[in-house]
Amino acid sequence: MSLSRIITLHQPKRLEIGANASARVGDWAADAARIFVLATPHTAGFVDRLGLKGSVTVFDAIPGEPDIITFDSAMTAAKTARPDLVIGLGGGSVMDVAKLVAAMWDGSQTLADVAGPNKVAGRRSRLVQIATTAGTGSEAGIRALITDPGKGNKIAVESPHLIADLAVLDPVLTFSVPPAVTAATGIDAMAHCVEAFTNKNAHPVIDGYARMGIDLVGKYLVRAVRDGQDTEAREGMMLASFYGGICLGPVNTAAGHALAYPLGTLLHLPHGLANAIIFPHVLAFNESVAAAKTAEVVGFLGLADRAADEGLQKAAHGFCADLGVEMQLSKNGATEDQLPRFAEDAHAIRRLMDNNPREMSVEDVLSLYRAAF
Amino acid sequence: MSLSRIITLHQPKRLEIGANASARVGDWAADAARIFVLATPHTAGFVDRLGLKGSVTVFDAIPGEPDIITFDSAMTAAKTARPDLVIGLGGGSVMDVAKLVAAMWDGSQTLADVAGPNKVAGRRSRLVQIATTAGTGSEAGIRALITDPGKGNKIAVESPHLIADLAVLDPVLTFSVPPAVTAATGIDAMAHCVEAFTNKNAHPVIDGYARMGIDLVGKYLVRAVRDGQDTEAREGMMLASFYGGICLGPVNTAAGHALAYPLGTLLHLPHGLANAIIFPHVLAFNESVAAAKTAEVVGFLGLADRAADEGLQKAAHGFCADLGVEMQLSKNGATEDQLPRFAEDAHAIRRLMDNNPREMSVEDVLSLYRAAF
Repeated sequence: MSLSRIITLHQPKRLEIGANASARVGDWAADAARIFVLATPHTAGFVDRLGLKGSVTVFDAIPGEPDIITFDSAMTAAKTARPDLVIGLGGGSVMDVAKLVAAMWDGSQTLADVAGPNKVAGRRSRLVQIATTAGTGSEAGIRALITDPGKGNKIAVESPHLIADLAVLDPVLTFSVPPAVTAATGIDAMAHCVEAFTNKNAHPVIDGYARMGIDLVGKYLVRAVRDGQDTEAREGMMLASFYGGICLGPVNTAAGHALAYPLGTLLHLPHGLANAIIFPHVLAFNESVAAAKTAEVVGFLGLADRAADEGLQKAAHGFCADLGVEMQLSKNGATEDQLPRFAEDAHAIRRLMDNNPREMSVEDVLSLYRAAF
Repeated sequence: MSLSRIITLHQPKRLEIGANASARVGDWAADAARIFVLATPHTAGFVDRLGLKGSVTVFDAIPGEPDIITFDSAMTAAKTARPDLVIGLGGGSVMDVAKLVAAMWDGSQTLADVAGPNKVAGRRSRLVQIATTAGTGSEAGIRALITDPGKGNKIAVESPHLIADLAVLDPVLTFSVPPAVTAATGIDAMAHCVEAFTNKNAHPVIDGYARMGIDLVGKYLVRAVRDGQDTEAREGMMLASFYGGICLGPVNTAAGHALAYPLGTLLHLPHGLANAIIFPHVLAFNESVAAAKTAEVVGFLGLADRAADEGLQKAAHGFCADLGVEMQLSKNGATEDQLPRFAEDAHAIRRLMDNNPREMSVEDVLSLYRAAF
């Protein structure tokens, strides 16, 4: 236990976990008159499963990486719908936009007003988050990220008012996630846990969630990738993702996510894939200063023998590649001349880099990108 | 993961964890105009630490086992205070009454109206729970128990409206808990975890919390008993208690708590002590049908060698006795002729007995009480 530090943990006050748990939303929301659902064209197909009883408006135009324009059009639609209940039905992008719309549609704050921690004035609409991927853990937390296409970076909003009243982890909604996406997002969930676990600001309370999450990834990710309809494996991965979301709260990620971000903003890789590519390199970089916890990670993932044989970086790389993730930056559209820019951008994300247990110079970052090239 | 069952998890949406975390309540509650604090004469002394800004009324007359009369007088005081924020500042008894008062003071429901699951109509006042013991885990959950002195049993109220908006785990508030109470309540916290873990209705999600809780008890209970001002150990035990409270939600306890209840209602033993006395006997009784999980428990408590030498029941008994708990019923005021009545009453608590992994007849129950005599 930490003697020096009080931590604050935000969690949805109600969780429904299990196959077809999403069917419970209707009863929970029976008194909601106007319901505004944020979704993608694909996840909008799940609305019928929720058993909603009020008047329902579905906004299904949330893309993979939501930007200011997406947010503005969702807000416009919400102002027309005037919801007393907002539902995020999708992955991290959908749920992040849902958080902001729920808190802001009936207020006068702009995105610029709420950027940063504790700027959101309040929230009157209720908020339900229904995850349809296992990766971001957005349903667990109080943070929303919106891309600013002008600046090429992410606007981070963080507020207790963004926590869901109800979060639903229904593995059936993830059955149709393709194997490659299952693999990449699953590794992202694990990265949230691992980067909080080996973090400079690690905390024993969060370590407990991290261990549960990494253990679940070790048990279930291979199965979920191999058979998308393996309910038990899908449920295990949703839970791992949720625990990863808890890890993102009071501790957050470190260099791994910092190095992944430029791959999203500049190379336009999906967030999960970007993190999977980076994961083995940062894990190995940090090993010398986080040996005991790294050994625990290796144990949970069943990689102890392989790491002893091949070394940690190769073993972790193999774990990801065996899941079908294309781990080379060059095969994901990167060119070698981009790497210095990636390194410069990643190194500048101090809110994450300063969490890393081992100091990482711009040259270190560049050499990790080169190793991943 | 369970394939058959959806579970619902209720948790406070905000937790503050760490030494002097209770000082954060004032800022969180800055907009509360009228604050009603439930406490004991001892815990009322902590009110000054909370930094409260509104008008504060302290009701400090909650006894160890709150009954209908206590509840009624707390309700009367609350109706005068008209709080927008209710704070439970104490152990399980105080927090249980706080839940009910917060939900009921401004309504027309009686205790009889709300008894059972999902009968509470709603709650308008906010609710903060500040635990001052590590045992009950009441701050984590949605259940309140009030003794009915006429019938000699407990009225159980269970409702999502009873969940705290904020729960505070501040180890400093437990420094003055005497060693014997620390031991007994710590074993109670462990019993919540163990009885959910080896439960007929065990669930992998709850197993995760149970493991964390039992592990913490193994690490910290001896230290907390030995040195009441060991902040790290006290914090670990508060967290174990919180996780035990989570276990009480969707899974709950089993025969251990069923056997402990008559010791509370008829022999008037404190709840923690009653559970400590019963713990080794039920653990050993259930071993044959829950061997793997029992072995995990034994491992977490560091009792593997001792159990191999002396047998499980003696090892677990020794664990409790070494902490200074008086484990014999006869030395806690019981007479042998009371045991059949205890056995009959315990066996009749079907809501818990039906959770037990191994069928337990009235004769089985009686023989366990005899072994504890």
